[in-house]
Amino acid sequence: MVAFDPMPDLDPAPADVDRLHDPVFALHVGGKMEIASTVALNGPDELSLAYTPGVAKVCEAIAADPGLYGDYTWTANTVAVVTDGTAVLGLGDIGPRAAMPVMEGKAVLFKQFGGIDAIPICLDTTDVDEIVETVVRLAPSFGGINLEDISAPRCFEVEERLKQRLDIPVFHDDQHGTAVVVLAALENAIKLTGKYHDTIRVVVSGAGAAGVAVTRILLAAGIRDIAVLDRAGVLHRDRSDLNPSKRALAADTADTTGRWGSLAAVMDGADCYIGLSGGTVPEEVVASMAAEPIIFGLANPTPEVHPDIAHKYARIVATGRSDFPNQINNVLAFPGIFRGAFDARATAITEGMKLAAAQSLAAIVGDDLREDYIIPSPFDPRVGPSVASAVAEAARRDGVARR
Amino acid sequence: MVAFDPMPDLDPAPADVDRLHDPVFALHVGGKMEIASTVALNGPDELSLAYTPGVAKVCEAIAADPGLYGDYTWTANTVAVVTDGTAVLGLGDIGPRAAMPVMEGKAVLFKQFGGIDAIPICLDTTDVDEIVETVVRLAPSFGGINLEDISAPRCFEVEERLKQRLDIPVFHDDQHGTAVVVLAALENAIKLTGKYHDTIRVVVSGAGAAGVAVTRILLAAGIRDIAVLDRAGVLHRDRSDLNPSKRALAADTADTTGRWGSLAAVMDGADCYIGLSGGTVPEEVVASMAAEPIIFGLANPTPEVHPDIAHKYARIVATGRSDFPNQINNVLAFPGIFRGAFDARATAITEGMKLAAAQSLAAIVGDDLREDYIIPSPFDPRVGPSVASAVAEAARRDGVARR
Repeated sequence: MVAFDPMPDLDPAPADVDRLHDPVFALHVGGKMEIASTVALNGPDELSLAYTPGVAKVCEAIAADPGLYGDYTWTANTVAVVTDGTAVLGLGDIGPRAAMPVMEGKAVLFKQFGGIDAIPICLDTTDVDEIVETVVRLAPSFGGINLEDISAPRCFEVEERLKQRLDIPVFHDDQHGTAVVVLAALENAIKLTGKYHDTIRVVVSGAGAAGVAVTRILLAAGIRDIAVLDRAGVLHRDRSDLNPSKRALAADTADTTGRWGSLAAVMDGADCYIGLSGGTVPEEVVASMAAEPIIFGLANPTPEVHPDIAHKYARIVATGRSDFPNQINNVLAFPGIFRGAFDARATAITEGMKLAAAQSLAAIVGDDLREDYIIPSPFDPRVGPSVASAVAEAARRDGVARR
Repeated sequence: MVAFDPMPDLDPAPADVDRLHDPVFALHVGGKMEIASTVALNGPDELSLAYTPGVAKVCEAIAADPGLYGDYTWTANTVAVVTDGTAVLGLGDIGPRAAMPVMEGKAVLFKQFGGIDAIPICLDTTDVDEIVETVVRLAPSFGGINLEDISAPRCFEVEERLKQRLDIPVFHDDQHGTAVVVLAALENAIKLTGKYHDTIRVVVSGAGAAGVAVTRILLAAGIRDIAVLDRAGVLHRDRSDLNPSKRALAADTADTTGRWGSLAAVMDGADCYIGLSGGTVPEEVVASMAAEPIIFGLANPTPEVHPDIAHKYARIVATGRSDFPNQINNVLAFPGIFRGAFDARATAITEGMKLAAAQSLAAIVGDDLREDYIIPSPFDPRVGPSVASAVAEAARRDGVARR
């Protein structure tokens, strides 16, 4: 390769000198990823294989038999990481350009933990119709679509419509990645505490993308008594301010249990708190929970219940942070889920594939299960392959695998 | 990185056993490119710099000062290679999926010869409005747009509208890449033969994307007497079948010279033939050209005038093929043009930048100029950096550089 410096003469705005000495900014200069060729191109002969005239034969073969597309292009291993920049980390609606460092980070994690080639696609529109149409038109370029940091409730409609339109995996990680990892951790917590799926009382704080998906997967896993709260309190049928996704969720949770009211009311006697909302739960509310409760405070960087407080009452504590035990982190799920889907050439990611991912994650802990180890580390090398294998198997079981 | 085989169990359709033994297909298994991380991610500390929580600082900085976008993301070095698959090589309208191997090849060339990270985007639409809207929505994800293999005349409107809508370089390589390389070769041919810009008689066969752009750049370089032909003959004002781009081209060529008629008529006494159309020029027509003509038969794989015939009459012969001297190949231009545009953070690619690219390409040949060496080899390591440097300088001169 000809030696180029792709970022010569970088002058990072001397007005802000702090950035020059910040390791985060230093690491981000020029971004975090690049394209690499997997073929040699050192002379005319190699050029004539990888490009004209040789490449024409491959084009003609795919035109004649579209089934060859995945075999002879990189697409079967690629995922578009698509955002509109409206719900980025805890920062909110910062727009598509400011969202890019997160999307690059996601792409790097896809490669590192799943061997997947991910491309950040930051869209200059927040209109649901336009997002859907744009992704549908792009779809031939990719083997899967990972939706990221699109605000609720638009994210639900975007995902649903794309799933209907496309025959490749479509996955909103803020929903389903979070849901898979929370379920995995909760399954092990239930096992350790001797609680039961059909009697455990769960409080989910937050009814955005993550809250909705976590609640859905807990219901699918057989948990029956869940109260879901947004900023106005528990979702239930008498509230007139619910959007359709919250209304549907109310029907499957508080509407059936009759457990309505404030956070303090539903936490009284609850077995498990799952924070997906930010804010702080008062200590007296934590103290009112049932014996040996399970507390997952997943807001980053400040958990809804600080571990120091949580440990005074809870038997099991988890956070989203890497500096405490039991880190519940999406990176445990999405790379293996797409790896498994791609290995099976799956046309979709089914509920069965998500449940299988959660079960395989929980199973990695195995006999080492203890209060401060209910979920493996993101750097445990067993994680990606185990999840991938379970997901591919589930894809075949669910009839969405093409191989 | 966890060891994955991204393409396990590949079973390339045993029905076509030939593919298993064809080096072109062997090279294309799994595609020709991948994503690579440029940062280390070996533990929680590195994760917290490249991803949460550290990455949030970079997002916030870009949200506060959008000018930092190019410094702290990979976008300033990325180009989308966008096609709708309607005019792929000589294969025609084979669709977006069958076009992908060519777009991957282009991306690999961008990296190899320009150090640029190129992403193939194959669109599932051929509607001009939809292509334009889609690319505009994608634009925050990329530092430049390279349009590729979109059929004429739609390609002209797509490019023109995108240039108006976007403040990043937009470049239709089939037009301008070809034009730059043809001009470079022709400048050296003119120098060697002692012909003059203002008297040389040129015939351009083909009025598609390449024919239009080649003619435009020759006019911009001071060549005055050009006849452009499509399948129905020379473009001129009395023809009622011309689309707007052909009509405009006629006004600047045959309408001003009055040189109308068949290919045979305009070739009689012509100094230079540039074939961008395919087909074959009869030998007696070649024989009717002026003394010491210049013949560029650029159709691939079969030049409009085979070099064996051309050499019987011409002083200088060039083709698009790597197995003859004087290969006129776009790869001489597009990597360096985008490299230069990116180095200058240019907001557009101007006519001045294209002319500078052609001049720098011609100048590389220098004192070694001779009949069988009017244009450097794509593998000459001086090409990319020379073109890049000339283009960046022209960007600054033309007022489109941001640094």
